Amino acid sequence: MRTKVAIIGAGPSGLLLGQLLQKAGIDNVIIERQSPDYVLGRIRAGVLEQGTVDLLRQAGVAERMDREGLVHDGFDLAFDGRCEHIDLKGLTNGKTVMVYGQTEVTRDLMEARSSSGGITYYSATNVQPQDIKSPAPYITFDHDGSTVRLDCDYIAGCDGFHGVSRKTIPEGVLKEFERVYPFGWLGVLADTPPVSEELIYASHERGFALCSMRSPTRTRYYIQVSTDEKVEAWSDDRFWQELKKRLPTETADRLITGPSIEKSIAPLRSFVVEPMQYGSLFLLGDAAHIVPPTGAKGLNLAASDVSTLSRILVKVYQEGRTDLLERYSEVCLRRIWKAVRFSWWMTSILHRFPGNDDFGQRIKQAELDYFVRSEAGRRTIAENYVGLPYEPIE
Amino acid sequence: MRTKVAIIGAGPSGLLLGQLLQKAGIDNVIIERQSPDYVLGRIRAGVLEQGTVDLLRQAGVAERMDREGLVHDGFDLAFDGRCEHIDLKGLTNGKTVMVYGQTEVTRDLMEARSSSGGITYYSATNVQPQDIKSPAPYITFDHDGSTVRLDCDYIAGCDGFHGVSRKTIPEGVLKEFERVYPFGWLGVLADTPPVSEELIYASHERGFALCSMRSPTRTRYYIQVSTDEKVEAWSDDRFWQELKKRLPTETADRLITGPSIEKSIAPLRSFVVEPMQYGSLFLLGDAAHIVPPTGAKGLNLAASDVSTLSRILVKVYQEGRTDLLERYSEVCLRRIWKAVRFSWWMTSILHRFPGNDDFGQRIKQAELDYFVRSEAGRRTIAENYVGLPYEPIE
Repeated sequence: MRTKVAIIGAGPSGLLLGQLLQKAGIDNVIIERQSPDYVLGRIRAGVLEQGTVDLLRQAGVAERMDREGLVHDGFDLAFDGRCEHIDLKGLTNGKTVMVYGQTEVTRDLMEARSSSGGITYYSATNVQPQDIKSPAPYITFDHDGSTVRLDCDYIAGCDGFHGVSRKTIPEGVLKEFERVYPFGWLGVLADTPPVSEELIYASHERGFALCSMRSPTRTRYYIQVSTDEKVEAWSDDRFWQELKKRLPTETADRLITGPSIEKSIAPLRSFVVEPMQYGSLFLLGDAAHIVPPTGAKGLNLAASDVSTLSRILVKVYQEGRTDLLERYSEVCLRRIWKAVRFSWWMTSILHRFPGNDDFGQRIKQAELDYFVRSEAGRRTIAENYVGLPYEPIE
Repeated sequence: MRTKVAIIGAGPSGLLLGQLLQKAGIDNVIIERQSPDYVLGRIRAGVLEQGTVDLLRQAGVAERMDREGLVHDGFDLAFDGRCEHIDLKGLTNGKTVMVYGQTEVTRDLMEARSSSGGITYYSATNVQPQDIKSPAPYITFDHDGSTVRLDCDYIAGCDGFHGVSRKTIPEGVLKEFERVYPFGWLGVLADTPPVSEELIYASHERGFALCSMRSPTRTRYYIQVSTDEKVEAWSDDRFWQELKKRLPTETADRLITGPSIEKSIAPLRSFVVEPMQYGSLFLLGDAAHIVPPTGAKGLNLAASDVSTLSRILVKVYQEGRTDLLERYSEVCLRRIWKAVRFSWWMTSILHRFPGNDDFGQRIKQAELDYFVRSEAGRRTIAENYVGLPYEPIE
């Protein structure tokens, strides 16, 4: 079998890339290790940057998002017992973010893929990119009991941090940058009305807390916990009690609690590899970079990688501009590092770090205080939160 | 002998406080351990914030500064081989900074003190604040062979980091916050024309460099060196060679070198004590806080402390508002921590830190790149550089 672009991974980035290529008439095949239900079962973030929203619209998969998604004009930063509002729309000349779960984005993309007739191999095992440094790469995988060989021009590695794509690149080619944060997030999903119409990021001496939501009836709350915490030690009651302690009194008093649907602890880290390409293989999203969830950049960065690669591939196939291919990594990384910086900064400034010295703690307080009270400071927060502009490919 | 306000230290903060109090008709006496020539011999920074300039004008000591000082509308940040301009004036609705040496400020203040008839005891030894917790404090000191007792209402400790004022406060009262940076600045003073009309802060992989000046014919250049460097190891020639390597080629080519008049290595650190008052004793400037020279906040922070204390004392003596006295520390510290944060940030982002990991280095690059290229980012740099507004005292 032969295609132009072989896409490994049917998460939101692989599906979105496939959809954009379909629309441009560029033949592609998606190979996914898991079943569709497994992919849809993953619970992930749900804040979409303006650029991601625009890209989903451009891909023609935004109808339900535009109907059901919650447009947020701002968010709150709570500290010192107060809530300070970051007016995203006012500070960025009208840009906003959209709260719409990653699961929903994936579902919409799956349906669009079905409608478009694009080929997707789910439950493919032993997926292996081959001859990636040659001009004639291919992928082998097992499916329904037989081994398939898929020849292609290019391979898009959209298979996440643990996927095979990055691991296929020979040792010594990639340089890894990593920061592991000394805490995790204990998250609870509940069918309760949100405590606030907008997200609340709270910095408290007991640790960070985040009030988020998936819909007007489904909430997602998080609290910072130490890395050795076990989820079993956290009853629903203990979680709600702790969450309330970290919120301004007025907010805590309004909080409606309920039984948790899901409860889990996630570690926080930043990770980037350079470069993001090797021969005919391109890495996108989590396959190339991980950010802590503070600021919700993960899915959005994947979307901007998809935008970059799809724009390049369209020029390659429509105008023969193969010279642009080698710019992929550089173009992506410029924006990625800024988002990694913002996620790191939001994480650093809002969490308590065990062992942080008194000077460091005061500096963080002063930094939060300055950035929230200065209009220029608020503007830097807002423009990063709604997402910096996509980089031009040439 | 009796006065209302006893001021320890005849550096710029003590003299400026004395001058502002003289103008308000508040009797004061200054006690200085050194001779006037020794005080004037200290070489210090020379970038005055807009607020410091305004305060010096208000104190009536700005005539020569306004004639000879160099108004700077901006400065340059050099990195990645380029110079990026920070347009202070354009980014802050018209605010600028004034390049005018601290020595000159001190000289002007000394002359004003002489004219006003204010009493200053130079070369006073064994200076000792007494009964500072009581409502009847006094200072004892030896002068011209006899011991003097100066009774007063309040004592202003303007005697720097090593002065007696802070040390007089009993153990356990003050909390110290400190950050020692793992490098120093090797500075050279030379009678050469400046390489640029404005300051250039350069971030380079060999380390930080700063091109500064005192006048159109006197320059002050600095390079980051490791803490164990000896000034004897740096010939003028070696210094100029190293400086040129850290500047963009175009700038290095223009640099005019010459024999050094002064050459020294200074350590960099941040230091703050809380609170800045105890009983009748108030700490100002370096007696309470030290900043690294990056961003030139030292003298300017001293000036804002002087502004705060003088505004409070005027209300105390004119309106009996003794309730404001206990607000001194809180009002000062709010602004101080923001300036300490900015100095820390400028230092962190422009220097190379030995042992900094690759992730940390990339984050700094991304941070510099973002802040310099975003208008909101440039605005945060500019408004901090020209100086944040003085805090109201009530």
